[in-house]
Amino acid sequence: MSVREIRGGAASADGFLAGSATAGLRSRPLPDLALLACADGLASAAAVFTTNRFAAAPIEIARRHLASNGGRIRAVVANAGCANAGTGKAGLQAALRMAAAAAAKLGCKPEEVLPASTGLIGSRLRIDRIEAALAGMKLRRGSPGGAAAARAILTTDTRPKQAAVESAGFVVGGMAKGSGMIHPQMATMLGFVTTDADASPQLLQQVLHHAVERSFNQVSVDGDASTNDMVVLLASGASGVHASADDLADAVTAVSRSLAMQIAADGEGARSRIDVTVTGAPDDAAARKIARGVAASSLVKAAVHGGDPNWGRIASAAGQVADELDPGRLRIGIGEQFVFEGSPCDYDERRASRALRARVVPLTLDLGIGDGTGEAWGCDLSAEYVAINSEYRT
Amino acid sequence: MSVREIRGGAASADGFLAGSATAGLRSRPLPDLALLACADGLASAAAVFTTNRFAAAPIEIARRHLASNGGRIRAVVANAGCANAGTGKAGLQAALRMAAAAAAKLGCKPEEVLPASTGLIGSRLRIDRIEAALAGMKLRRGSPGGAAAARAILTTDTRPKQAAVESAGFVVGGMAKGSGMIHPQMATMLGFVTTDADASPQLLQQVLHHAVERSFNQVSVDGDASTNDMVVLLASGASGVHASADDLADAVTAVSRSLAMQIAADGEGARSRIDVTVTGAPDDAAARKIARGVAASSLVKAAVHGGDPNWGRIASAAGQVADELDPGRLRIGIGEQFVFEGSPCDYDERRASRALRARVVPLTLDLGIGDGTGEAWGCDLSAEYVAINSEYRT
Repeated sequence: MSVREIRGGAASADGFLAGSATAGLRSRPLPDLALLACADGLASAAAVFTTNRFAAAPIEIARRHLASNGGRIRAVVANAGCANAGTGKAGLQAALRMAAAAAAKLGCKPEEVLPASTGLIGSRLRIDRIEAALAGMKLRRGSPGGAAAARAILTTDTRPKQAAVESAGFVVGGMAKGSGMIHPQMATMLGFVTTDADASPQLLQQVLHHAVERSFNQVSVDGDASTNDMVVLLASGASGVHASADDLADAVTAVSRSLAMQIAADGEGARSRIDVTVTGAPDDAAARKIARGVAASSLVKAAVHGGDPNWGRIASAAGQVADELDPGRLRIGIGEQFVFEGSPCDYDERRASRALRARVVPLTLDLGIGDGTGEAWGCDLSAEYVAINSEYRT
Repeated sequence: MSVREIRGGAASADGFLAGSATAGLRSRPLPDLALLACADGLASAAAVFTTNRFAAAPIEIARRHLASNGGRIRAVVANAGCANAGTGKAGLQAALRMAAAAAAKLGCKPEEVLPASTGLIGSRLRIDRIEAALAGMKLRRGSPGGAAAARAILTTDTRPKQAAVESAGFVVGGMAKGSGMIHPQMATMLGFVTTDADASPQLLQQVLHHAVERSFNQVSVDGDASTNDMVVLLASGASGVHASADDLADAVTAVSRSLAMQIAADGEGARSRIDVTVTGAPDDAAARKIARGVAASSLVKAAVHGGDPNWGRIASAAGQVADELDPGRLRIGIGEQFVFEGSPCDYDERRASRALRARVVPLTLDLGIGDGTGEAWGCDLSAEYVAINSEYRT
């Protein structure tokens, strides 16, 4: 079944509401609190969490709540401006209170809410402000609700990230945030995807795993995996459609992929999004690994920034992570030209340099070994990235 | 046996000669060719090579020559200005001719010479220039020879890197180059270490493995492993001393560690060297892995550059690579202060910020789990790094 892109976000699927509030967790008075909830009853849910061992308090609580309810939850509540990480027992208490406050508003149990946080590590969550803001928050269906929530979860992002598709009688929509501390291995950012298809938590977990492998895990901004990352998939069943596993996987992957690409394009200090496509690999997983390696290479990113068609860095980045690679069969493309075909080949350097300075920079690698394909997304490395990250707190 | 630092380099151990020449491989007329050789006869040898699958031609030839001679070689010949990588069959021929030219000069077999190259990937090695320059090269013993060779292998390095020690009746000395494309997993740079101790190739390989794990593999400048990296250890036996495995390992590790620290300090665009010390890990390997993860984190490096005591990034970088980590037991130090002790603790921010702007920045992590310790070295991430790597070729 084909997937059709539509305008929308996390509250576009039937049965979901979303909203935002300004709790006052940031230095400036901007929306910093989002709630995404089932209109009534519980949704099937699945989630992937950061693999970072210094995981934040909300990660621990969300993991616990999801498990204790057998994958049925009512809502996700997320704040920006404070990661609630490295905050010890007080942090766990704050995350629990955050879930409880959302539950009180919705009339459900605290264990039916997953908390999420993003922002500075180590500062204490002002939970009283969150409780007050939640009490007054308005929730809406459709695009207005989704857009408000998408804006409230941003940190150093320069724009909200939303995507939605229609498929075989059901809708999938989502929102995400993240522009720094972003690196493969689930270990990316916050992503919340909803659907009105009817699906069990088990099916959702499979679908989410499939989608994340091909989207969020293929984005790298700076090689750092965060303490707070999670992606949640919720299914309300409101459409009454029992989607097939394949249809649902395709639609959720399409939304996740769009969100991942938006994250790469909005990388801290980035001018260009880098789209790496690998073909001819032994298998798809090998192709994805190599694509990710190229997208994550600081030297490739700096070369793109400088408009330098330095294919040697692309080859080296691939060689660094590849389990199998024959330089004599490798072909590398920048934009629409091959720049290396088993050995250096003639190409138009000016044209290659122009391609590297575009807003979207396609880099292609054909390994000439098998049928595996994969994609990954990154961004150029600019002096501004360094500036942003040297002055985050001070 | 204690190891005593002395002034010297790769030709300080008895039985070695070194020299340099200007072959004209760089854009400017600077020394770009180094030869390090036994005065006569063959040395026991051991080497570690890059794990990059896009390995350069000299790596392939050096690997082959070392294996074909059962670990007995006469010399290493190294050039800067051209990596001879991604150059196909012509590149392999050029690397073979480079070894043959050095062999002709020394009166040995081509297979008794290991070639090495560093510089731009993809350009063709001007082997005729190397042959001409080798013919006229003068070789000297001791510091003058070592210093000349150490200078000729540099690329974007700002200074030569040499170290030497005396131990139980024998000397170990070495040189290295590398300031970008530097990352753990042997996969660092060029390093040539010599000793006049008497040792078999098998013992040398054990000793080199031990030393590299605690030195070169613990340096990260930018997370990129190069196509050309190798570390070679040669033993002439000229001192007549049969060093014990432990004595030799200690001395070779001391020289390698000094060279690794010099590389970190000279990272592209770096102002500060970052010294990460991990204690209390389950074992030494775990400690080294975590130290490396912290030293390699772009976010930690940018925070150091900005003088921002953002311990959250240090904790997160550790959590990202740790197999075992309990946030409640973790202690983090910046300079001489603890900034995190299981939970955020009071500290003098101004003093911490000053420590981060020093030429050497000590970061310590105590995991509070076991007895494992480890070190790693990195450098701050500056806007200049981006500038250097945006404009390498153009």
